[in-house]
Amino acid sequence: MNERVVIIGGGFGGLYAAKRLKNAPVEVTLIDRRNHHLFQPLLYQVATGALSPADIATPLRRLLKRQRNARVLLGEVVGFDVENKQVILTDGAVDYDTLIVAAGSGKNYFGNDQWRDNAPGLKTVEDATEIRRRILVAFEAAERTSDPEKVRAWLTFVVIGGGPTGVEMAGSLAEIARETLRDGFHSINPSDARIVLVQSGDRILPTYPPELSAKATEALERLGVEVRTGVKVTDVQERRVTVSNADGAQDIPARTILWTAGVQASPLGKRLADATGAPLDRGGRVIVEPDLSLPGHPEIFVIGDLAHFAHQTGEPLPGVAQVAIQQGCHVARVIRRRLAGRRVTPFHYRDLGNLAIVNRGMAVADMGRVRLAGRLPWQLWLFIHLMYQMDIENRVLVFVQWLWNYVTRGRSALLITERDQLAASSQAPTSLKLVTSTGAFLRVKDTNS
Amino acid sequence: MNERVVIIGGGFGGLYAAKRLKNAPVEVTLIDRRNHHLFQPLLYQVATGALSPADIATPLRRLLKRQRNARVLLGEVVGFDVENKQVILTDGAVDYDTLIVAAGSGKNYFGNDQWRDNAPGLKTVEDATEIRRRILVAFEAAERTSDPEKVRAWLTFVVIGGGPTGVEMAGSLAEIARETLRDGFHSINPSDARIVLVQSGDRILPTYPPELSAKATEALERLGVEVRTGVKVTDVQERRVTVSNADGAQDIPARTILWTAGVQASPLGKRLADATGAPLDRGGRVIVEPDLSLPGHPEIFVIGDLAHFAHQTGEPLPGVAQVAIQQGCHVARVIRRRLAGRRVTPFHYRDLGNLAIVNRGMAVADMGRVRLAGRLPWQLWLFIHLMYQMDIENRVLVFVQWLWNYVTRGRSALLITERDQLAASSQAPTSLKLVTSTGAFLRVKDTNS
Repeated sequence: MNERVVIIGGGFGGLYAAKRLKNAPVEVTLIDRRNHHLFQPLLYQVATGALSPADIATPLRRLLKRQRNARVLLGEVVGFDVENKQVILTDGAVDYDTLIVAAGSGKNYFGNDQWRDNAPGLKTVEDATEIRRRILVAFEAAERTSDPEKVRAWLTFVVIGGGPTGVEMAGSLAEIARETLRDGFHSINPSDARIVLVQSGDRILPTYPPELSAKATEALERLGVEVRTGVKVTDVQERRVTVSNADGAQDIPARTILWTAGVQASPLGKRLADATGAPLDRGGRVIVEPDLSLPGHPEIFVIGDLAHFAHQTGEPLPGVAQVAIQQGCHVARVIRRRLAGRRVTPFHYRDLGNLAIVNRGMAVADMGRVRLAGRLPWQLWLFIHLMYQMDIENRVLVFVQWLWNYVTRGRSALLITERDQLAASSQAPTSLKLVTSTGAFLRVKDTNS
Repeated sequence: MNERVVIIGGGFGGLYAAKRLKNAPVEVTLIDRRNHHLFQPLLYQVATGALSPADIATPLRRLLKRQRNARVLLGEVVGFDVENKQVILTDGAVDYDTLIVAAGSGKNYFGNDQWRDNAPGLKTVEDATEIRRRILVAFEAAERTSDPEKVRAWLTFVVIGGGPTGVEMAGSLAEIARETLRDGFHSINPSDARIVLVQSGDRILPTYPPELSAKATEALERLGVEVRTGVKVTDVQERRVTVSNADGAQDIPARTILWTAGVQASPLGKRLADATGAPLDRGGRVIVEPDLSLPGHPEIFVIGDLAHFAHQTGEPLPGVAQVAIQQGCHVARVIRRRLAGRRVTPFHYRDLGNLAIVNRGMAVADMGRVRLAGRLPWQLWLFIHLMYQMDIENRVLVFVQWLWNYVTRGRSALLITERDQLAASSQAPTSLKLVTSTGAFLRVKDTNS
């Protein structure tokens, strides 16, 4: 029987590992909780109504359909039996000879998990449609409210976290308010929306060179975004965010609060550490050997956001797609070489540069000595994010929508859908639930007369 | 002050009425619970993964953005105060001089509302994504099950109702099983799926001429659909449907059951009848005067699925888009003529013909003496469903996806998304919930070895 390779997680790392094992003398089983690979770097465009979920999500079965030695299992991994070389699922177990754990990361509220409901993060398709719903409902609620203070709170959007996702979200929110929704409302002017980007460090995009952070800040401020650096979020309530710095604390009344501040390794990292004795870092990531395997367990690899790999520069590699992709490809190569009886090489990360988008026509690029801001890196960003789409269909769909949105300065998917499907099927009032639960509205006729 | 026209419902009827009042000396307020107009005739394509929700849903504000005399109110109507000419919302009231009620219809389980959870119907975007989820989860669950009887139940799809929606759904399910998912599974062959279309009457498409019903039946049977006419559904459970005819009752074990059998007028019809004394028919529709107004209330109109209009042929007009569109246009014309002091004409429905699609390349058309089945009516169907898209963007998106799907014989949006968003944000197991709640699985390693 061929070597059984089990891969946990259908993100960039897991999927590239599976694909690079095509034609190898192995049986690949890819396990994921979801039926699709999600192109995470464009998820913020779903959250801001520029793309539909299906544009950036591709069924794993379709992606691996032509690969004879791979199968997909929709399943939830709950633990590991490394003695018997088994992955434990909620409803069964799968045997492996080699295991690749690419379970990724989730949101990190730094011990304040009670903030989660008031400040959703952006990791899944559902997160994105929920954030889209909140943004659109906020404008609708503001339109119906006559108390100026409440209108102000509905039109205040606070984005917590000044990394690439926070910058993208703040830039997109500014575009939605100033361009997409410009007409169409009567009682409010969407352009009045206040968008606040809160960053605890002293500059946004802290992993980029300072001059690019400055360019991004300038661009955001031109869009009317308030960039507040050096302030910590100390509390998040349903209707306000509390931020603090050396001068004291301040409340920002806001009804839409988005969390992009931290990621936390999948809890499977902890389970794997318990089972193998592998060390974890403070973020819950598994500290891996130079070849990405675990100490004492050459048959287990950890890659992507869940892996802490610091052998190259002393610093752990960042949780970005290109790291996961390169690690997935590396592990596939290691497995092939081992089976061929050849020497295994350590992983070497080749940084191809980093791009962060601010808004239409503006991105920053850090490619070692070459540092760019403006239209050229923006075009590069578009190109790369099209080319790395996993299948040609997504590429076409994303391209068509981008072209359309670019020409019309619109957004294709400004859809409020239900939070709770069951409520919908029993014909309960819909998005209005959120609106009316505020008790904030005067009689509508007042605003109508 | 200009005459205040309040329209309840942003479906075909309400939207066409609003648009045809452009430049009239009125103030239009369009009230809807949802922020978007939904192109209902293509909703089954979302349920079967061919289109994304945003492809067929357009924000009402965008559609009315260039119409100065119209505003959109996201609101839930709960009643009417016809004395004071007010529409009562959950959180306020809106004054009208003229009222157009176009609140549409929901699903009718004929007194068996307990069937709703086991046999969802297709009315909203959420219904469509929930049905899509169930269809895709069924194949995944079958792939993981080893008990042949349980595999059979997961691979059995029962569509209740042989009208156009039931026929579309059955045809699409057959295409999904025989073409779209053909490769990609290992333990099962999706082509083995059993698709049963249950119709209580003696033929499917009962509103079409018998020869077209026969053509549609033939086409479905060629696709491997079991068309069962003259059988009534007497019970729907989570894992089976009971059907009965003169020969007795029979259980069909099935895990995916879809309801397309009946529509019921919006409950607002009853509230309006209580408030005005207008008569209702058995389906809860409001029986309207020849000009679509209510008896004794020339300032209130009811149009679309909620209206019972039988002045033309003695039979009420069917609940289809072209009736709603023509009625919306008519009411706008009546309002304009009244304001101009001109005579009001009765509504006259002009039947432009009916088209029902079966599958790729096959539709039936009933246009009076001209009756067609096959490729030509299918092309006509595609053309009409593109041309009636409310804005050019949806037209482009739908066109591109259709072209793509046609060329690749694939489907763009085979996405399993969460039923419950809150579960997702707390990182609970996802679609698996449904799968694992069956307790049906053996250890996965059994099927792996």
